[in-house]
Amino acid sequence: MSKPLILNEDRLFSADPAQRAVARELYALIKDYPILSPHGHTDPQWFADNANFGSATELFLAPDHYIYRMLYSQGYDLNDLGVGSKAGPSTADPRTAWKIFAANQHLFRGTPTAMWMNHVFGQIMGFDKRLDETTADEYFDRIGELLASDAYKPRALFERFNIELLATTESPTDTLEHHQKIRASGWKGRVVTAYRPDPVIDAEHEDFRDKLKVFADLSGEDVYSWKGYLAAHRKRRDFFMEMGATSTDHGHPTAKTANLSGAESEALFNRIIAGEFTSADAELFRAQMLTEMARMSLDDGLTMQIHPGSFRNHNQTIFETFGRDKGCDIPLATDYVNDLKPLLDAFGNEKNLTVILFTLDETSYSRELAPLAGHYPILKLGPSWWFHDSPEGMTRFREQVTETAGFYNTVGFNDDTRAFLSIPARHDVARRIDANFLARLVVEHRLELEDAAETIKDLTYNLPKAAYKL
Amino acid sequence: MSKPLILNEDRLFSADPAQRAVARELYALIKDYPILSPHGHTDPQWFADNANFGSATELFLAPDHYIYRMLYSQGYDLNDLGVGSKAGPSTADPRTAWKIFAANQHLFRGTPTAMWMNHVFGQIMGFDKRLDETTADEYFDRIGELLASDAYKPRALFERFNIELLATTESPTDTLEHHQKIRASGWKGRVVTAYRPDPVIDAEHEDFRDKLKVFADLSGEDVYSWKGYLAAHRKRRDFFMEMGATSTDHGHPTAKTANLSGAESEALFNRIIAGEFTSADAELFRAQMLTEMARMSLDDGLTMQIHPGSFRNHNQTIFETFGRDKGCDIPLATDYVNDLKPLLDAFGNEKNLTVILFTLDETSYSRELAPLAGHYPILKLGPSWWFHDSPEGMTRFREQVTETAGFYNTVGFNDDTRAFLSIPARHDVARRIDANFLARLVVEHRLELEDAAETIKDLTYNLPKAAYKL
Amino acid sequence: MSKPLILNEDRLFSADPAQRAVARELYALIKDYPILSPHGHTDPQWFADNANFGSATELFLAPDHYIYRMLYSQGYDLNDLGVGSKAGPSTADPRTAWKIFAANQHLFRGTPTAMWMNHVFGQIMGFDKRLDETTADEYFDRIGELLASDAYKPRALFERFNIELLATTESPTDTLEHHQKIRASGWKGRVVTAYRPDPVIDAEHEDFRDKLKVFADLSGEDVYSWKGYLAAHRKRRDFFMEMGATSTDHGHPTAKTANLSGAESEALFNRIIAGEFTSADAELFRAQMLTEMARMSLDDGLTMQIHPGSFRNHNQTIFETFGRDKGCDIPLATDYVNDLKPLLDAFGNEKNLTVILFTLDETSYSRELAPLAGHYPILKLGPSWWFHDSPEGMTRFREQVTETAGFYNTVGFNDDTRAFLSIPARHDVARRIDANFLARLVVEHRLELEDAAETIKDLTYNLPKAAYKL
Repeated sequence: MSKPLILNEDRLFSADPAQRAVARELYALIKDYPILSPHGHTDPQWFADNANFGSATELFLAPDHYIYRMLYSQGYDLNDLGVGSKAGPSTADPRTAWKIFAANQHLFRGTPTAMWMNHVFGQIMGFDKRLDETTADEYFDRIGELLASDAYKPRALFERFNIELLATTESPTDTLEHHQKIRASGWKGRVVTAYRPDPVIDAEHEDFRDKLKVFADLSGEDVYSWKGYLAAHRKRRDFFMEMGATSTDHGHPTAKTANLSGAESEALFNRIIAGEFTSADAELFRAQMLTEMARMSLDDGLTMQIHPGSFRNHNQTIFETFGRDKGCDIPLATDYVNDLKPLLDAFGNEKNLTVILFTLDETSYSRELAPLAGHYPILKLGPSWWFHDSPEGMTRFREQVTETAGFYNTVGFNDDTRAFLSIPARHDVARRIDANFLARLVVEHRLELEDAAETIKDLTYNLPKAAYKL
Repeated sequence: MSKPLILNEDRLFSADPAQRAVARELYALIKDYPILSPHGHTDPQWFADNANFGSATELFLAPDHYIYRMLYSQGYDLNDLGVGSKAGPSTADPRTAWKIFAANQHLFRGTPTAMWMNHVFGQIMGFDKRLDETTADEYFDRIGELLASDAYKPRALFERFNIELLATTESPTDTLEHHQKIRASGWKGRVVTAYRPDPVIDAEHEDFRDKLKVFADLSGEDVYSWKGYLAAHRKRRDFFMEMGATSTDHGHPTAKTANLSGAESEALFNRIIAGEFTSADAELFRAQMLTEMARMSLDDGLTMQIHPGSFRNHNQTIFETFGRDKGCDIPLATDYVNDLKPLLDAFGNEKNLTVILFTLDETSYSRELAPLAGHYPILKLGPSWWFHDSPEGMTRFREQVTETAGFYNTVGFNDDTRAFLSIPARHDVARRIDANFLARLVVEHRLELEDAAETIKDLTYNLPKAAYKL
Repeated sequence: MSKPLILNEDRLFSADPAQRAVARELYALIKDYPILSPHGHTDPQWFADNANFGSATELFLAPDHYIYRMLYSQGYDLNDLGVGSKAGPSTADPRTAWKIFAANQHLFRGTPTAMWMNHVFGQIMGFDKRLDETTADEYFDRIGELLASDAYKPRALFERFNIELLATTESPTDTLEHHQKIRASGWKGRVVTAYRPDPVIDAEHEDFRDKLKVFADLSGEDVYSWKGYLAAHRKRRDFFMEMGATSTDHGHPTAKTANLSGAESEALFNRIIAGEFTSADAELFRAQMLTEMARMSLDDGLTMQIHPGSFRNHNQTIFETFGRDKGCDIPLATDYVNDLKPLLDAFGNEKNLTVILFTLDETSYSRELAPLAGHYPILKLGPSWWFHDSPEGMTRFREQVTETAGFYNTVGFNDDTRAFLSIPARHDVARRIDANFLARLVVEHRLELEDAAETIKDLTYNLPKAAYKL
């Protein structure tokens, strides 16, 4: 017998009646605010072409590493879950894959995935029964029908979700053709890009040399000279800004920065280009480029985001068979205090530069990030990220950051997702957790209710708008 | 005037009425479940000989490092607490030692020791007054009487505690004579061993060469050759499995693993045997042996437990005077992401291997352990361990692990104790904390009650049964 | 329209009615206890001269790095906030500076600064309206009037605050003239010094050689020889003890200790004096001096405090322009387990030595500090410090430390402040948080109410009194 799917209106609020009452009141103020999504990984082609999405498996299961990593950890094969490999698309029957997911809902108990999916199923897809083995077919069929309808096309959903702005992330080697098409289409939806130059900065990336070639072609610069390489970045940044970009994004293994002299930088760059570099050289080059990017941001005004601390593609077998980004990235301890110092020595006191820091290492919240952001004018803290984009994770973020950095050195929520349909769910979780955290401060008489009300509006809307210059 | 000893039936549950009500309901479902104790350090001789235990001091004080380390930290001498040294047994009068403990109950306020001991005193020994200076003699006398009775013999207590299975831990150099005797006795109690090869793997252990000799004798293999050494492990593992073992246990200073070629391994082994090795060699050998043990587990099916991150015998004076395991071990920061990679590269994607990870470094829960266990099929997370086997520690474990790894990549509770009489108390604490944690998810509408009910049964019984193949 | 300033009598207590009721009861027991402030940085000249304090800006804003670092992080210049630089005093108009602070109260929402300041404004200054743009002038004027009155002179406030003892911190190169003047004055207020020898121990400090010269002059010893240098420390310690010192304080970048032979120490010292030393030498010298200080403490009985783990003057520009201690210190990950071992090997088991450890790295609470203090007789844990001297920080301290170290290896609260008027507020926060934490243990049936009552008295008064030998 199937079980009812219930989205309780008090979900994520404390059970304490006093705190819950305040949380409700604060949440009510902002629950219908438009969504600002200044950092994410949706595909701009969806909004350019506005084609219908495919099956439930193609939309929800195969692209969502939160889901298939959990199933993989319990012994299911990625191919059987609809995940394509280097050999080509998955050979699994989408319905069969879906049934594996349906039959393993217990694995997701207590995870944010469970909350996000229930929100999507209940609120967006209209189900009133939970997904399980008994409802798997009904879900698969009904989702397929809905996705084939006009109301579930990308642009229609974008509008229904009340998204004011959505940023995608592209490499300098991307032509941004989809963004151009969106702009040319006359559609009112604001979809902008963000400049993520990792592929032409990380000399250890397997496609580095191929990407450099494209970088040269698109920029028309001699990217094999240090000057030309920097000029190419400036040109592409300008073009990205034409396509709406207000920020850059940098996903490095560490937070290391460097501030070499011009001659040292050029010598290092020449080693990189000659292919005669050590792993330490590659790390130093990434470090130097963060400082170069900050220098460019001072000129062109792009807000800079640093996302360090992930050991990418940790599972060697999966990397070889399935490629990158298959749920095999594992966080690393990250040092911000020493690593950021060269960049901060150079630009830390600037008033017209914003650098947003993220972490996968929660130990840095109270020890490093809050003290740094609570002092340096250029620094702001991004929200709890990736594995920590969750009720407990968000709560720890506020608990460990606020007392030193306050609320106003943070920048609101990022959904950071490829899972387009989960965007409202994710923002809703963040809004509820902020409401609940502020409510605790209120009922413990650490904050006045009217100040909490102003704060939650700022967290939801004004802070991201300002930090990302939207 | 003595104070009443009260074991409140709601202990460890939140004071919030809604959460408490759900916690009660969940706890009621499993409070009488039999105890599975798949990892611990009780003495098999107790169950083999079934002799009466000694005095209160001998049973509770002298062997319990939680207790005497706290008293030692406040200036009491170990000898005065009944703890034997290298020079021989303690010269203290047991009753006098007991009175020191009795007079210092305030030191244990807020510690799990206080809860465990009150449970033992109230539930198992039948006291209704608290231990303090005024009741010290009464306690000492009454406990002595009880321990001299048939009802308090090891096997009777085992049955009274409703223990379905109890694992001890032995070295490959142990003859397992007590386990053989238990099996030969026809007693129904299931006491099994576990294979802990540290003494013949850690070349830096002071008894390494002596232990190798015994290892040779018991296995009949040439343990001084790499092939013979591995063969000896295989033989002893087989024999341990005859004595009920379903798991191995590895207590290394770090989580380092290695995957050397056969020739490299042999060369390293030869340096170890020749006694011509550096500290780095010893570390590399321990690292390589974890991978060898995983390889053997693939063949014989033993579940593997890795307990890294303790600086053993940190107090040099105590080590020299009293020897090992005298409450002087201190946790170390532990890196799982880099250290486990060689083993994971070799066997991380196997479906017929289970490796259970423990930590003394809570920072690894959300940063490393949950992401690793939430991806690799072979990895599961052991419960919060040792210093963290406590209400706050267990709660942090669930809060920091569940959102990424779920409940189903964990393996239920381990009491990990030498303190036999505290086993029911420890399992009761774990059950209550799990009930309370699940109850919070329910009242915050993050989990349905019926799912919580299924989950707590799994945490209490089904998950340890599966992970340890009981 | 201005907003009412309300100090709710239940502030910082849980909203749960049961817990709150117990917290109230526990807090009532100790809220009027006298203040012991055994570690802080107030200026003894205040109490020696008993002159009136200056304006609101001079008293509250310009010297308080918690306040101006937050404003600086949002783009305000330090000079505009009244903070003096190397070029001289701030050129800002104090009233204008005050208005910046007044207009930015929202930045402090959720921070301890907000609670401390509201306590000062409401309780000590008698305001019933909150500070904001509309009340900035009124505040500035009224505070100026009050500070000009006799009732707000340092000694009058000291008495009004019910301070039983206040320790300041001075360098061996300080003549302690203010302390001498206080003693000579016949005033009853107990203001004592503490021995902080960092300036003559840290060879990397820019004033090291100048300080050594003063050290030589004041001690009359040949501080350029190892023997004379140690003798100078002993002499100055004796003099500090005459001026009431019961403790030393050591603020090193790491917790590193060393136990070199006499010859090695002397050779190291000679390199330091010759100015021919590496950064590693300077670190080793600081490490060795902690052990030397412990050795002296064994003789003279001074309690030793170690405050490691701050990257001082992280902001190079501010350091060059404004100098030290301008809110630019950032915590560092700190290793206690390896770093303290040499000192612990030498003196860890002494019964007549107390070493109090502090940290800015909260990850060490449960992993390192509680296990160390829960074992070694000489070790005690100082309260949560600096960035963690806050409701959440204090709560984490108790949650993460108590289960392993108990309450009785901690030493009560330190306000550690230069902000004299905030001392009652800070102690009040600590007392409330302890009451609230103990109340939770009581309502979760983990501690009896009568034991909690005894414990909070010990935390508030008896433990600091004993640890600091007051």
